[in-house]
Amino acid sequence: MSRITNMSYGKTSVPVMKVVRKEPAHEVWEFVVDVTAESPELERSYTEADNSPIVTTDTMKNLVNYLSFSHDFTSLEDLALDICRSLQKRYDHLQKWTVQIEGAGWERLAPGGAVHSISFARTGPEVSFTTAVVDGTKSSLRSGIRDLLVLKTTNSAFSDFFRDEFTTLPETRDRMLATSITAEWKVPPSEIDHAGINHSIREAILRVFSELKSESVQHLAYETASAVLESIEEVEEISLRLPNKHYFLVDLSPFGVDNRDTLYLPTTAPHGDIYLKLTR
Amino acid sequence: MSRITNMSYGKTSVPVMKVVRKEPAHEVWEFVVDVTAESPELERSYTEADNSPIVTTDTMKNLVNYLSFSHDFTSLEDLALDICRSLQKRYDHLQKWTVQIEGAGWERLAPGGAVHSISFARTGPEVSFTTAVVDGTKSSLRSGIRDLLVLKTTNSAFSDFFRDEFTTLPETRDRMLATSITAEWKVPPSEIDHAGINHSIREAILRVFSELKSESVQHLAYETASAVLESIEEVEEISLRLPNKHYFLVDLSPFGVDNRDTLYLPTTAPHGDIYLKLTR
Amino acid sequence: MSRITNMSYGKTSVPVMKVVRKEPAHEVWEFVVDVTAESPELERSYTEADNSPIVTTDTMKNLVNYLSFSHDFTSLEDLALDICRSLQKRYDHLQKWTVQIEGAGWERLAPGGAVHSISFARTGPEVSFTTAVVDGTKSSLRSGIRDLLVLKTTNSAFSDFFRDEFTTLPETRDRMLATSITAEWKVPPSEIDHAGINHSIREAILRVFSELKSESVQHLAYETASAVLESIEEVEEISLRLPNKHYFLVDLSPFGVDNRDTLYLPTTAPHGDIYLKLTR
Amino acid sequence: MSRITNMSYGKTSVPVMKVVRKEPAHEVWEFVVDVTAESPELERSYTEADNSPIVTTDTMKNLVNYLSFSHDFTSLEDLALDICRSLQKRYDHLQKWTVQIEGAGWERLAPGGAVHSISFARTGPEVSFTTAVVDGTKSSLRSGIRDLLVLKTTNSAFSDFFRDEFTTLPETRDRMLATSITAEWKVPPSEIDHAGINHSIREAILRVFSELKSESVQHLAYETASAVLESIEEVEEISLRLPNKHYFLVDLSPFGVDNRDTLYLPTTAPHGDIYLKLTR
Repeated sequence: MSRITNMSYGKTSVPVMKVVRKEPAHEVWEFVVDVTAESPELERSYTEADNSPIVTTDTMKNLVNYLSFSHDFTSLEDLALDICRSLQKRYDHLQKWTVQIEGAGWERLAPGGAVHSISFARTGPEVSFTTAVVDGTKSSLRSGIRDLLVLKTTNSAFSDFFRDEFTTLPETRDRMLATSITAEWKVPPSEIDHAGINHSIREAILRVFSELKSESVQHLAYETASAVLESIEEVEEISLRLPNKHYFLVDLSPFGVDNRDTLYLPTTAPHGDIYLKLTR
Repeated sequence: MSRITNMSYGKTSVPVMKVVRKEPAHEVWEFVVDVTAESPELERSYTEADNSPIVTTDTMKNLVNYLSFSHDFTSLEDLALDICRSLQKRYDHLQKWTVQIEGAGWERLAPGGAVHSISFARTGPEVSFTTAVVDGTKSSLRSGIRDLLVLKTTNSAFSDFFRDEFTTLPETRDRMLATSITAEWKVPPSEIDHAGINHSIREAILRVFSELKSESVQHLAYETASAVLESIEEVEEISLRLPNKHYFLVDLSPFGVDNRDTLYLPTTAPHGDIYLKLTR
Repeated sequence: MSRITNMSYGKTSVPVMKVVRKEPAHEVWEFVVDVTAESPELERSYTEADNSPIVTTDTMKNLVNYLSFSHDFTSLEDLALDICRSLQKRYDHLQKWTVQIEGAGWERLAPGGAVHSISFARTGPEVSFTTAVVDGTKSSLRSGIRDLLVLKTTNSAFSDFFRDEFTTLPETRDRMLATSITAEWKVPPSEIDHAGINHSIREAILRVFSELKSESVQHLAYETASAVLESIEEVEEISLRLPNKHYFLVDLSPFGVDNRDTLYLPTTAPHGDIYLKLTR
Repeated sequence: MSRITNMSYGKTSVPVMKVVRKEPAHEVWEFVVDVTAESPELERSYTEADNSPIVTTDTMKNLVNYLSFSHDFTSLEDLALDICRSLQKRYDHLQKWTVQIEGAGWERLAPGGAVHSISFARTGPEVSFTTAVVDGTKSSLRSGIRDLLVLKTTNSAFSDFFRDEFTTLPETRDRMLATSITAEWKVPPSEIDHAGINHSIREAILRVFSELKSESVQHLAYETASAVLESIEEVEEISLRLPNKHYFLVDLSPFGVDNRDTLYLPTTAPHGDIYLKLTR
């Protein structure tokens, strides 16, 4: 006899643009929403082709649109929590709901230095996201960023590592360090100042990246996570994924040139990948 | 005081092409390998900038290349298990190793019907993958496929679902059904006939997709998973992720035409997403 | 005084799925259409904000849908020509129309060897395309393929090339050769057997790729183009773009292994790029 | 008898990172280079498998690296011209060379407002590019930007266009306008202040986008191109490609809500596409 050990369903990638036509300047919120429902009540939809417990994913999309319109939110965190709780309240035969929102950055255009009230340019490649979960009477909230590409041209070392006959990597006390930061942090699922907290976390991450004399990406990850926990009290936990995007010195010696720390070959794959989760 | 609740590192996306120059026809194996190590021994590399336990990810890459060359493997499953066990044996201060391999499909060219011995064409978009894990004395193996895009033009219904005032989706007894199958199955971590098992599972999945009169994607997922568990005894567990890639009928009535089940608008986002894990 | 030296507009990427519900088996046609209009009549829409000559791109999309539905086409070439001519006839103040169609491949599922009548799997990564142009009383038609990835494990050399002090590439009489074929051919803009012609061209391309002992990608390009012109009389001209997707031998000598033509590093960038257009 | 009507070859996507370790702050230049050679001398490499005129694409890559290292350039335009002329001078049996460079944007990190001297974040999605061509004694230079995504929430209309029975688009005097700007301009192939010119052009483009009350994308394209030609005298010609990235109002009336210019569905395909080239 087989048994279901996991089941869920939902709507993925509902795209939304909201324009708030305020004075003196319009605001735009563009984001993509994923909704997922989980409940033992759904089992008969799988095993007996009984669709009666299924809230259609099209209905989920309708509610995402309706709530995005009617809720005068000031952060995607507030909206994600609202959608989550509205879904659970309305469809109370389904106990657990997860709502993830990814935001697209738009900044005001300022040609000639004058900030414009109705025109915007897309920023990137960095993406912000937030995930709200309600499960019965419990709820949680995590927010984060991904695709924040950064590099430093010095103040990064990697030496004194484990060696054996398969180790050909030379030690270095000075290398380029480049990574694409993914960070996710857990904060209280309430209407605190999410925009402010997110900004402070991002600043702390970039400050450690800029200032640390790093001995390894592991070292950087730990010092970064520690600095966030120390400086922003609302953060209960933070995880970091830091790929090591290698830049290799190009050998120009066949052409009579000594390429000392100047010309590098950017690479994508393969790359190192370092992960850490730190909890208060 | 903070504490580390999760840490891992490794090499991602090591690309490999192996040519086996056999008679009467060459074989090619192209794949990409991810290696991940986990161990409490790594903690001091994060917290104390002590790199002594770090096997460099470059060394991991070297071993992937060396083993891919020297192992006369007949499936990516065998290679993944071999890499995993070799890493653990060689670097026994690190207890848990995960090796994931994704294969790229190449099929022999047969211009004019004659199968050629040294030329190949890439197949796609379907991708095969396998993940071996060794953790102390335990080991496990999961294999799967993703991006297997399939559609059926009829024999799919969706009706009698939950309705409220946010439900605008009409019921239907006959619709297009398109999905991009991701399936992952657990099999014994040993040198059984992986190629044969994988083939049988894929055939079972496609047979149910083709033949079932589906009442929902949930129904399809359950019948598919059940058929795999019933027909291939080595499979201990299978999960399926089935996005519902909507094709919407185009309204041609403004142009005096009754578009009855003929012309559809293919869409990508948003889409439904149905998940199931079934265990023996 | 400035002057307009080029102007055009149109609708890009109109997605269409057409299901032909025939007995004994359904047919599916999935494709994406680009429409472009050019005419001196459009100048005032640019310079005087006079929209009266503008056929909206939304209208172009409506006509693409309408004609895709109502035309019982047997090739995308026939459909492209039909859309082009219909647009020009209907909107005769705009003299030049270009319609490009890219097809998505779907093949019938055959689980257990039995070909199924209503279920399909997507093929790839190869893409077929066709471009019809009507300009006043003239018309033309080009068809082609792209992203046809092929490789051969031997019978490819590259030697006796120009050398100077910046040349570090060794000569070789035996190397891997991999490319992603883009080919485009000109054929009469009429209802000839396009499917048959396209098939014959594709077979000729793959035959030369498989059989030629190639001295360079340039050599391969010329022999391929020549073979197509020689064997398919409807082809008036053919162009080939052949990137040289390098596979580099991995140096395993640090590990005591002689990697003779077995293990390669697949690369994407940088790559060589060879282009040829051959006219009858 | 067939004849070659076009032939070229080269190296595509040579990635380069150059770090200039200046005081008080380091500079980084990351870019990708494409090199293409054309010459009647190449014909025998195609037709006779005679490789003697072929400068290998690997050699081209070596020269790109060498010149990127040794040239103390201050713009990618200067570097592109230098590479082009060096190639033509060194390999004078090949008369025409094209060098395209695409730059990746990196801006200094400034955590807490303090600009940092050795750390950087990637900007995007906008990309800058430049294309230098030397052909015998003639040379030319074009620069540009692509993927500059912008939107305006009002001051865009589209009405009084051509209508027939296939036109279902309503007229509007106020709509969202979003586009992804591609612009390319021709400037003298000399060491003028390319960075300054490029900046002025970009500002002019964004100023017109922000301030114009647009009657159509065609209107916007013309006013933008005219403003550039009027205000920056070095520009000899400019082309603009402006996709019309549609945002559609979401119908919330089934849920009792009047969505007046607030909630939109972002779309990608299909989209309008407007092109203009304006010459002084």
